[in-house]
Amino acid sequence: MIEFEPPLRLHLDGDALVANWRFLQRQGKAACGAAVKADGYGLGAREVVTRLRDAGCRDFFVAHWGEASAIADLVPPEWISVLNGIQPADIPLIQQLGAIPVLNTPNQITMWKASGGGKCHVMIDTGINRLGIGPEQISSDLFDGLELDILLSHLASADEDNEQNAAQLVVFADIGQDIICMRRSLSNSAGIMLGANYHFDLTRPGLSLYGGIARLEMAGSIQPVVRLFARILQVRQLEAGDRVGYNGRFSCPTQMPIGTVSTGYADGYLRAFAANGSASDQGQELPVIGRVSMDLVTIDISMAPSLKEGDWVEMNYDLAQASSSTGLSQYELLTNLGTRFNRRWT
Amino acid sequence: MIEFEPPLRLHLDGDALVANWRFLQRQGKAACGAAVKADGYGLGAREVVTRLRDAGCRDFFVAHWGEASAIADLVPPEWISVLNGIQPADIPLIQQLGAIPVLNTPNQITMWKASGGGKCHVMIDTGINRLGIGPEQISSDLFDGLELDILLSHLASADEDNEQNAAQLVVFADIGQDIICMRRSLSNSAGIMLGANYHFDLTRPGLSLYGGIARLEMAGSIQPVVRLFARILQVRQLEAGDRVGYNGRFSCPTQMPIGTVSTGYADGYLRAFAANGSASDQGQELPVIGRVSMDLVTIDISMAPSLKEGDWVEMNYDLAQASSSTGLSQYELLTNLGTRFNRRWT
Repeated sequence: MIEFEPPLRLHLDGDALVANWRFLQRQGKAACGAAVKADGYGLGAREVVTRLRDAGCRDFFVAHWGEASAIADLVPPEWISVLNGIQPADIPLIQQLGAIPVLNTPNQITMWKASGGGKCHVMIDTGINRLGIGPEQISSDLFDGLELDILLSHLASADEDNEQNAAQLVVFADIGQDIICMRRSLSNSAGIMLGANYHFDLTRPGLSLYGGIARLEMAGSIQPVVRLFARILQVRQLEAGDRVGYNGRFSCPTQMPIGTVSTGYADGYLRAFAANGSASDQGQELPVIGRVSMDLVTIDISMAPSLKEGDWVEMNYDLAQASSSTGLSQYELLTNLGTRFNRRWT
Repeated sequence: MIEFEPPLRLHLDGDALVANWRFLQRQGKAACGAAVKADGYGLGAREVVTRLRDAGCRDFFVAHWGEASAIADLVPPEWISVLNGIQPADIPLIQQLGAIPVLNTPNQITMWKASGGGKCHVMIDTGINRLGIGPEQISSDLFDGLELDILLSHLASADEDNEQNAAQLVVFADIGQDIICMRRSLSNSAGIMLGANYHFDLTRPGLSLYGGIARLEMAGSIQPVVRLFARILQVRQLEAGDRVGYNGRFSCPTQMPIGTVSTGYADGYLRAFAANGSASDQGQELPVIGRVSMDLVTIDISMAPSLKEGDWVEMNYDLAQASSSTGLSQYELLTNLGTRFNRRWT
């Protein structure tokens, strides 16, 4: 197949990724793992795992078994934990792969024991009511004979100052006293900032590794990892009154030069950016005008009149700011980045 | 690499795809092409091209050269048109590939002529002001020596009853009289429904091939192509007052069974579905409750109490209805469908 250079790029900063992991690790004495599910939050799990492994990370969390399989040549498979549990048909392949299941229900514990078992993790639901064994489902013999490494739970509201955090902490600490395990783990990125008593033995940040600001306290410390660049495909001078894009939503107030840029909602740059999105060129902000198309965005280049066909511009993608202006979460802004980008790691 | 069966599937109906193409073709005497950019609007360009080729489609439109390269073994390359123009560095590879460029600027026409040329298409901008040569940029000798197959333009407001449609039609018809070309093409899915005078020689629908309702007139004729299915990973009985999901946004009004389903916003099932999304099981509608997570959605299964861990449910994904309830366009609902789905064509 003939390979063309894609006209849109993600610049991915491996040093920032590692610095973010180290910052999160420094918040306490617990070991710091990494959530690399959803292909490393859209950035590329293999590149993320390689860099964090080299920095000293030893615990990687994915959602699906296919995601574990896709990184299992990069680290010892027992460093990989699969959050979304097990299905009977998968068990022989799981044992062949050697990654560690997070068992989420009494039924999964029974299946795992019946299959011959081996090392496993268990998720306890302490109040998010999503995945995990509820306190009411724990019986005295449920964990007997289980080779239990990590006892996990997950915080529902760690990004807020919310009494639910302390309530979940109490439940988890109480339950953990009665269950024999090697390690305990509760906190995601935001949870790490709630204090060392939320850390237990192992934390497992995701969002903030990738530059997301999970809580405001980290805004000065977490570095951006992702930048978007795309080529200008066309520059044209429009007249006052000319309308731009689908349904003519933008009308030129005056004569102005516009640039048509090679990215769009099929790349994850959703239509929600039409109102507040912008590009940058040499410090000048170039507002998105008109609707975002599937493969194209139009920008006002009045402030950068030397831009021409073939030039690259940066699409501004500060996660916290873009989240606030589009109503999309920082998580969605990362995980929806599409496959057409040339992902370039430095 | 060990292959696991993904816990989430797209059921893709090849017969519906072909029936939609035939319906669009029947609206007039023009040939009917197919927009297969953005990986066939997220469904899989290779599968789409194969089926439409076998049904008789001879013109396939992509945005990027990499997208042309990815399907060039399936059809004669000259059946593939690349909408987003040319860059100087790509020209040797373009000539090697043999797909046909859509030239969008006077500069691209000059470059193409200088490179030795060959068959090409030209996009005229008749009012969307996004890509294409503006009427004011056309000089008497611009097209001299060009082996021009299709003269294209693109409608901005074909999904509305808007005077812009007739205005664009008049401009395109006028310009087309002065330019020597083999074929002329103006209409996307919605444009086809504006009447045969919008069709010229070739139409190039996208959205409605894939089940999208580009205009209400087609609602009874266009068939859905995509259905989403995902496994239930866990079933649990909750008590009145229990809160579900991130930030505890949903509070159980009474005792109720919930199911946790294996899809989330990383798969394109965005958080906008939290308020109005639902699953289906045997005709029962099972509302999404709480926030959509990255890999998980929680649903109220009170109406389907026999559902259990490991069962599959359908996530309701009627494009027009989901667009109306989420504020996302039908296009975004298709193109954001993620890579973790097992895409199963029938």
